[in-house]
Amino acid sequence: MSDVFGVQNLPYGSAIWRDGRRHTVVRVGSSALSLTTAAPSEFAELFADGTLDRLLAAGRATWTDVRALLPSLIDGAELVPLADLRMVLPFTVADYVDFYASEHHATNVGRLFRPDEEPLKPNWKHLPVGYHGRAGTVVVSGTPIRRPHGQTRSADGTVSFGPSRRLDIEAELGFVLGTASRLGDRVSVAEFAEHVFGVGLVNDWSARDIQAWEYVPLGPFLGKSFATSVSAWITPLDALAAARVPAPPRDVAVLPYLDDSAHPWGLDIAVEVWLNGELISRPPFAGMYWTPAQMLAHLTVNGASVRPGDLFASGTISGPRPDERGSLLELSWGGAEPLTLDDGAVRTFLQDGDEVVLRATAPGVGGDRIGLGEVSGRIVPA
Amino acid sequence: MSDVFGVQNLPYGSAIWRDGRRHTVVRVGSSALSLTTAAPSEFAELFADGTLDRLLAAGRATWTDVRALLPSLIDGAELVPLADLRMVLPFTVADYVDFYASEHHATNVGRLFRPDEEPLKPNWKHLPVGYHGRAGTVVVSGTPIRRPHGQTRSADGTVSFGPSRRLDIEAELGFVLGTASRLGDRVSVAEFAEHVFGVGLVNDWSARDIQAWEYVPLGPFLGKSFATSVSAWITPLDALAAARVPAPPRDVAVLPYLDDSAHPWGLDIAVEVWLNGELISRPPFAGMYWTPAQMLAHLTVNGASVRPGDLFASGTISGPRPDERGSLLELSWGGAEPLTLDDGAVRTFLQDGDEVVLRATAPGVGGDRIGLGEVSGRIVPA
Repeated sequence: MSDVFGVQNLPYGSAIWRDGRRHTVVRVGSSALSLTTAAPSEFAELFADGTLDRLLAAGRATWTDVRALLPSLIDGAELVPLADLRMVLPFTVADYVDFYASEHHATNVGRLFRPDEEPLKPNWKHLPVGYHGRAGTVVVSGTPIRRPHGQTRSADGTVSFGPSRRLDIEAELGFVLGTASRLGDRVSVAEFAEHVFGVGLVNDWSARDIQAWEYVPLGPFLGKSFATSVSAWITPLDALAAARVPAPPRDVAVLPYLDDSAHPWGLDIAVEVWLNGELISRPPFAGMYWTPAQMLAHLTVNGASVRPGDLFASGTISGPRPDERGSLLELSWGGAEPLTLDDGAVRTFLQDGDEVVLRATAPGVGGDRIGLGEVSGRIVPA
Repeated sequence: MSDVFGVQNLPYGSAIWRDGRRHTVVRVGSSALSLTTAAPSEFAELFADGTLDRLLAAGRATWTDVRALLPSLIDGAELVPLADLRMVLPFTVADYVDFYASEHHATNVGRLFRPDEEPLKPNWKHLPVGYHGRAGTVVVSGTPIRRPHGQTRSADGTVSFGPSRRLDIEAELGFVLGTASRLGDRVSVAEFAEHVFGVGLVNDWSARDIQAWEYVPLGPFLGKSFATSVSAWITPLDALAAARVPAPPRDVAVLPYLDDSAHPWGLDIAVEVWLNGELISRPPFAGMYWTPAQMLAHLTVNGASVRPGDLFASGTISGPRPDERGSLLELSWGGAEPLTLDDGAVRTFLQDGDEVVLRATAPGVGGDRIGLGEVSGRIVPA
């Protein structure tokens, strides 16, 4: 995949460097450059703590300046193979919000969780439904995921406690906020790129049995809060300029603050879900009903402020086709239609030892495709 | 109220001191002592940043040592009148979780929001229902609260956008976490006091019209995220030792991890809701169905970790009597039964200019009552 990490991409991360300290790094192919070491003096302070935190807070003009500088820094510099580094969480997660922006996903989940009702609630096409998740349990790609314990209720109504038996994935994109807004102000769809630094992949691990029992009336809680994995690499928004597309047609008119006709932020990003080394789904982000610019406009329309390090995720990306679904809940239709893998193994939900990897590519500026950093996780026993 | 802030209380806060810098302070009556200035050298680093952040992270043994030292530090020290100080948010809020632990509140809200259903969902007596809120919009007592804009749906089904017309309060207690836990570990009900530093008052401002439209199926979002107010003073858990009481009888047996019979953390705290200077309700915390120790045990039973600065709130405190309800939604029964104030003013929900103050007292060690720091806020126009 190193060809999709060329100079038109240049994602940022945080690594334990060969000196044992955290360094802010930029990826070039299958190697990395330390900005903590190589940045010129006027930018040195930005990378001194080895994270993206100060870069995020610095704002759009600085992001542009630093990105413009990278080719000259990389040229002739000592690059370190990624195999020699250990990647860590690239930034301090402030608030974490998860949306629910795929019509296909929301419809599938509605059918499975509430079979006697209309699958989409009346609000769904009027606003991007979202909720807050747990920032403190966001972990970097590669972190083992321990199967959570929790309360569940069986079909006969018995409430019991034990390891989740319906452990699932959610293939999502995550958007990393940089520039802060003030409490009381809104971030319009036009201001999206002023505030959003970049994009990563997110696996919003979900214990469906815990979630189904707990989620009324206040939403998901322990079914999600045990872990959320993000990619080690955050691709700058500038690298995705050629991936911008209009959102799909909407059949309900949106309120003016959600009107994105002049600011299309659909993104033609092709996601892949790999289970134990086998490609099991290809969710297309371009088909998402709500764009990330609409998500941010909605998140702030009540005056809620954003901060550097805020992370909001799209919700599960599912396309219309069965092989485009972004969760095992949908791929196995609630467990009723197990998947058979190439090696003959059968899966509904995740078993201990299973490894899930999400990958994604998008059109790059200049023609070649670029990649998002993968997000991986292996299930360890409860 | 200064008599309830005697030496058996000694809550902590963060203030802009007379030198223009933030100081960590302890309240004595209607004055404060700067720990940033007065702490002996072995504790100086704890208070150097002027917040409670380092004290929270230091853990129970340090909390005990510092508290034991306070009387000697206060004795003869220069105390500064609170009127000379500006209080700021006392700690950096990590994750914010809000529970729903009053049976009377949950029953009232269920009747009002879902009149055709059983008011309590089937899960309610099996687990303390909760959800994550927005940490970045937690503000200190006294911060003006701007009426939020948002989407609402009228009775005829029309969706519109504008300032909330059903702006409400929620009178709650908030519990401030200190000692961290590791991802994958649980905090049992027996370990509550090892992890929880102290208690403050919380007003979880709520836009009921926004909330009612948005909250299915993933819970409250913009109806709550515009602001949550916390008291400037955090009372140490040790000061509430005489307030501990058993929780009320429970009519559904709880799972072992929620069994608190050997670790009662009900708290006999008498809360008061003041609207424009008039006492309008007296919610009793002692009647809460779920205790804070159960809330923390539930929050972590899936392995979710906690960090210094995590804040979890109880949910609205409502007693069985009409004058013990902790929200205007309940006090005005969804707006159908307006309150008439002493000056003849009539209220269902909050009007611009209204000021709400929450106060609370509890039995102190030695007999005198102690006070929690008030949380106040005035509504400013959208």
